[in-house]
Amino acid sequence: MVRIALDAMGGDFAPKQVVIGAVEAATEMSDAKVLLVGQMSAIQAELEVLPKELKARAQSAIEKGSLEIIHAPEVAEMDESAAKTILRKPDCSINVAMRLVKEGRADAFVSAGNSGAVAASAMFTLKRIDGVHRPAIAMIIPTKVPGKPLVLLDSGANCDCKPEWLVQWAIMGSVYSQQVFNQKEPVVGLMSIGEEECKGNQLVHDTYPMLKEAKSINFRGNMEGHDVCEGTVDVAVCDGFVGNVILKSVESVAKAIGSWLKKEITATPFRKILALLLKPAFKALKRQMDPEMYGGAPLLGVNGTVIITHGNSSHKGIYHAVRAGVAAATNDVSGLIKKSIAEYADGAETSK
Amino acid sequence: MVRIALDAMGGDFAPKQVVIGAVEAATEMSDAKVLLVGQMSAIQAELEVLPKELKARAQSAIEKGSLEIIHAPEVAEMDESAAKTILRKPDCSINVAMRLVKEGRADAFVSAGNSGAVAASAMFTLKRIDGVHRPAIAMIIPTKVPGKPLVLLDSGANCDCKPEWLVQWAIMGSVYSQQVFNQKEPVVGLMSIGEEECKGNQLVHDTYPMLKEAKSINFRGNMEGHDVCEGTVDVAVCDGFVGNVILKSVESVAKAIGSWLKKEITATPFRKILALLLKPAFKALKRQMDPEMYGGAPLLGVNGTVIITHGNSSHKGIYHAVRAGVAAATNDVSGLIKKSIAEYADGAETSK
Repeated sequence: MVRIALDAMGGDFAPKQVVIGAVEAATEMSDAKVLLVGQMSAIQAELEVLPKELKARAQSAIEKGSLEIIHAPEVAEMDESAAKTILRKPDCSINVAMRLVKEGRADAFVSAGNSGAVAASAMFTLKRIDGVHRPAIAMIIPTKVPGKPLVLLDSGANCDCKPEWLVQWAIMGSVYSQQVFNQKEPVVGLMSIGEEECKGNQLVHDTYPMLKEAKSINFRGNMEGHDVCEGTVDVAVCDGFVGNVILKSVESVAKAIGSWLKKEITATPFRKILALLLKPAFKALKRQMDPEMYGGAPLLGVNGTVIITHGNSSHKGIYHAVRAGVAAATNDVSGLIKKSIAEYADGAETSK
Repeated sequence: MVRIALDAMGGDFAPKQVVIGAVEAATEMSDAKVLLVGQMSAIQAELEVLPKELKARAQSAIEKGSLEIIHAPEVAEMDESAAKTILRKPDCSINVAMRLVKEGRADAFVSAGNSGAVAASAMFTLKRIDGVHRPAIAMIIPTKVPGKPLVLLDSGANCDCKPEWLVQWAIMGSVYSQQVFNQKEPVVGLMSIGEEECKGNQLVHDTYPMLKEAKSINFRGNMEGHDVCEGTVDVAVCDGFVGNVILKSVESVAKAIGSWLKKEITATPFRKILALLLKPAFKALKRQMDPEMYGGAPLLGVNGTVIITHGNSSHKGIYHAVRAGVAAATNDVSGLIKKSIAEYADGAETSK
């Protein structure tokens, strides 16, 4: 049984969507126990107003012990700065849940809350893995190949980066791709502006030879923005500035295309009817484009499993994030990262 | 009459698509004269095999003088490195056309050829505008607001950048947005990972105050990837590494969504019929997403008008690139940039 500490108070639609996602996860995943962490009264109020069928499922899950509420007296406002939240509210849901992981009472933490606050709390409570320069947030981007998403890191925690950080992220991202997305030998790409080794900025020039030397990863060389959705690369490394900009630009375009499509297929009454009949196709399209399906972004490089999902996650997003947490914890992603980072350091030392 | 020197040999589908686009532009734009620059024999062979109606139009355009062929004996291979091409083949179409602009025999140069080669030739022949640190390639990205595309620069020519370059690009991009897309006071955004002044990497931190001080631009502060397609920003500045990665990632996602959509709406015979009836809607969507409609990427900061279009441009892409060249030359974008750059330098000097 994998115990997931789930932040009931984090996200734009918390606690409602989190509670629904929690009930779904607790009743549909046979290998998961969900610990809903947050203000007891708020969580109970949400459970009260659930639709009848869900309410019954929640009740039975609580009775069977696959759903448990853990009270966290304080609530972190989303507009507070990350560090402040963590320092000033030791008993907010994020900190309480993180301590459950630290103390071995939970196997993973999942939150749709402020990613800065979650990362700060993780650093403070779980601490970074020995030898890790900088933990990174790995974003998961759907590609043309179903079930083969791109793990892109770092995606925002670190702006001005050093080559050795990117090498560690390549190792960490490879472990995640292997263990959570079942890619046997994940292909690693170094994000640049051309495939040739000579293309790129100073950071790329400095990082390339180090990635080439790293034995534990399957480095294919530079990649380009063109490759993001192709499904030919499993792990993309770049500095957090570039990663964040890619991620948000990609979301912006997907949203724009969605709105153009909607406008066009509803432009006339006739088109509206056709579009209605094609609804299953558009739904399938939406599902394929939906990053929620891939379970949110893991924070890699800390001692423990931490999954951060999009602030606007629906119950579906929460559900899939719990599933990612279960997969990462079951396969001991954090432990394997620790081992790989240590081995890389040893290897590097021997070759000196 | 605006005279456009058009590179007949540049692009994946040259000379065929270039020749078709040239004939269309020469016969449909009353204010343009197209000078098709390339191997005479190759161009004539393409004109020979044009469909009847187009062939007649070409004939009449040549007779009226709105279409002219200018022989360039050498051809630049696309796989040669940019600098080599320019040095070793002084009489390739790119160099010959660029000299027409230099000598005042053409008002603008348009090419779908290797952007590195075009930029190198422009630097060599036209030279950079006095005081310009680095010319930049400005990419045009469609947004949700029709007719209000985003001008993103630099998009690949310059990797590790200095703040003063970005400030000049903001000025240059604003002139282009004003003159070619009729934005009266183009909103300038500095690409970063958060709206707050404190967010970003070192380059952003250093550039922000300089943009804030620049009087000739309408700086709104940091922007994020999320804003790319919103139509709220007219000019986005960033280093060429980030710009190139954004551009290609965005193209990658648009392509992926297109292929998912196609797959879904043709998954069953019934869906295929519905999709066929909805074809006008999908066509309109494609048109809106199509960067070809915005006429390619201007190389800004050199003495003259240079437009580089996508290597895989169709005749439509060529046509719109010619139109962009006409607009930029008619409105003297290059002269206005020269004036603005000089004024900014003077202003900066006075304020010291």
